[in-house]
Amino acid sequence: MAKYLEVDNSAQAVIARINDAECTPRFRELMVGLIEHLHAYIKEVKLTQAEWEVAIDFLTRTGQTCSEERQEFILLSDTLGVSMLVDAINNRRPANATQTTVLGPFHVAGAPEREMGANISLDGVGESCLFKGRVLDTDGNPVAGARLDVWSDNADGFYDVQQPGIQPKWNNRGIFTTGADGAYHFVGIKPVSYPVPVDGPAGEMLTAMGRHPYRPAHTHLIVTAPGYQKLVTHIFVGDDPYIDSDAVFGVKESLMAPFRKVEGGETLWECPFDIVLAPEA
Amino acid sequence: MAKYLEVDNSAQAVIARINDAECTPRFRELMVGLIEHLHAYIKEVKLTQAEWEVAIDFLTRTGQTCSEERQEFILLSDTLGVSMLVDAINNRRPANATQTTVLGPFHVAGAPEREMGANISLDGVGESCLFKGRVLDTDGNPVAGARLDVWSDNADGFYDVQQPGIQPKWNNRGIFTTGADGAYHFVGIKPVSYPVPVDGPAGEMLTAMGRHPYRPAHTHLIVTAPGYQKLVTHIFVGDDPYIDSDAVFGVKESLMAPFRKVEGGETLWECPFDIVLAPEA
Repeated sequence: MAKYLEVDNSAQAVIARINDAECTPRFRELMVGLIEHLHAYIKEVKLTQAEWEVAIDFLTRTGQTCSEERQEFILLSDTLGVSMLVDAINNRRPANATQTTVLGPFHVAGAPEREMGANISLDGVGESCLFKGRVLDTDGNPVAGARLDVWSDNADGFYDVQQPGIQPKWNNRGIFTTGADGAYHFVGIKPVSYPVPVDGPAGEMLTAMGRHPYRPAHTHLIVTAPGYQKLVTHIFVGDDPYIDSDAVFGVKESLMAPFRKVEGGETLWECPFDIVLAPEA
Repeated sequence: MAKYLEVDNSAQAVIARINDAECTPRFRELMVGLIEHLHAYIKEVKLTQAEWEVAIDFLTRTGQTCSEERQEFILLSDTLGVSMLVDAINNRRPANATQTTVLGPFHVAGAPEREMGANISLDGVGESCLFKGRVLDTDGNPVAGARLDVWSDNADGFYDVQQPGIQPKWNNRGIFTTGADGAYHFVGIKPVSYPVPVDGPAGEMLTAMGRHPYRPAHTHLIVTAPGYQKLVTHIFVGDDPYIDSDAVFGVKESLMAPFRKVEGGETLWECPFDIVLAPEA
């Protein structure tokens, strides 16, 4: 190997600097792969000096767009399919268990515990929907004491935390716990599709790729029960126009629910969705 | 291909979203390569959710460490060998021409034009050194009217712009223009090695890899002349203890100069270094 960095040996020249005595094996593995891919990429596309400058500026502005209320690097990861890939790698489930998807940036810990059947649409705006189903194990037995933490946007496509002072606190959020039959039901709204924020660098990237920024309508759930793997997922509105082009690649076939119009019921819609938890490893 | 993002098809699922009608061919090429390498990397190292969170936090802090005076993403690029690789790809020179290296963050446009032979060490601190040589073409003919923009750190390892109010403005900086014989000479100091900034994320990465942050001593030059390619390079002190482990991988064999002790001369050292410019393409 040449002694100094040249085009042909560039990744190896950097990797050779890792001091194994002071670097953990895992950090070494992560850095070796990163350096190899980064250098291979730059050589394959023959990155120009001007393009490198654009990349430096883009990454800098992405970091500087982050604040207490906004995480632009997560949005970049989401829109490049990275968040969903990391989720898929780390959350493989049995085929008959409910599959996972991304958490998203709008979960808030500590939502109110509600009585089964309660209405979480505190502003009363939107098309009412009864969500109902059972929490089961992979053998089809009911799971008692399962905790469902649910949240969704409002009828305008915004989460309560995006509109403090406009939406009531904890609007479209609540926690429900199953009884012996594993059943759950609650009233919310049929969620609506909405765009991810496009006024930052991730939005510029979407525009330059000719992509729209919309997420198909979905209700979020985190379901936990002793002895079972934590489930972070969505229920998607299966006939949403964006169902095949989610800006963050969160859709899975098995997570689409039928939203059925109800004639003469207490809600306009109902959404039956059983949840199957995988046992802890 | 599966319709939605899965581990096996993840890169293709993202690439399939590029809208060719609204994306330039070059941006498409850049994004396809980026997405392929990013997804392949994550799968190869089986990135955990916790590691992804560390990466998001690291990138966010790198952007937020940038300011008018500091560019932490460039430092990250430098310390990963990326800046030097981009330089090498874009600045291939004939073997007998002086080779390029990184510009670095401390160049300031508009340094004073000096008479040939002038002393640019305005604070008079450090070991004085006479830099001398000729600017030649690749056939060995002198290049008249070549402009040498030179800069270096001071004896404490800081550039003037790092110590406003401590160092005189334009300390160890100047511009010299060759006459008909192509010769140049000026007095400066023998440069000293110094660490890149380590109080930010790039420093954390160096520490975690067990790497030191030092650059071997060097004097910067930008040499321009009509009809020749712009040369951005360094003259390195060949026997510097860090010469084989430059934190930013800028060293090339051909850029090491002999720094010779002078007995009874006007300077303590002299550094002979001929500069060979490549013709414009």
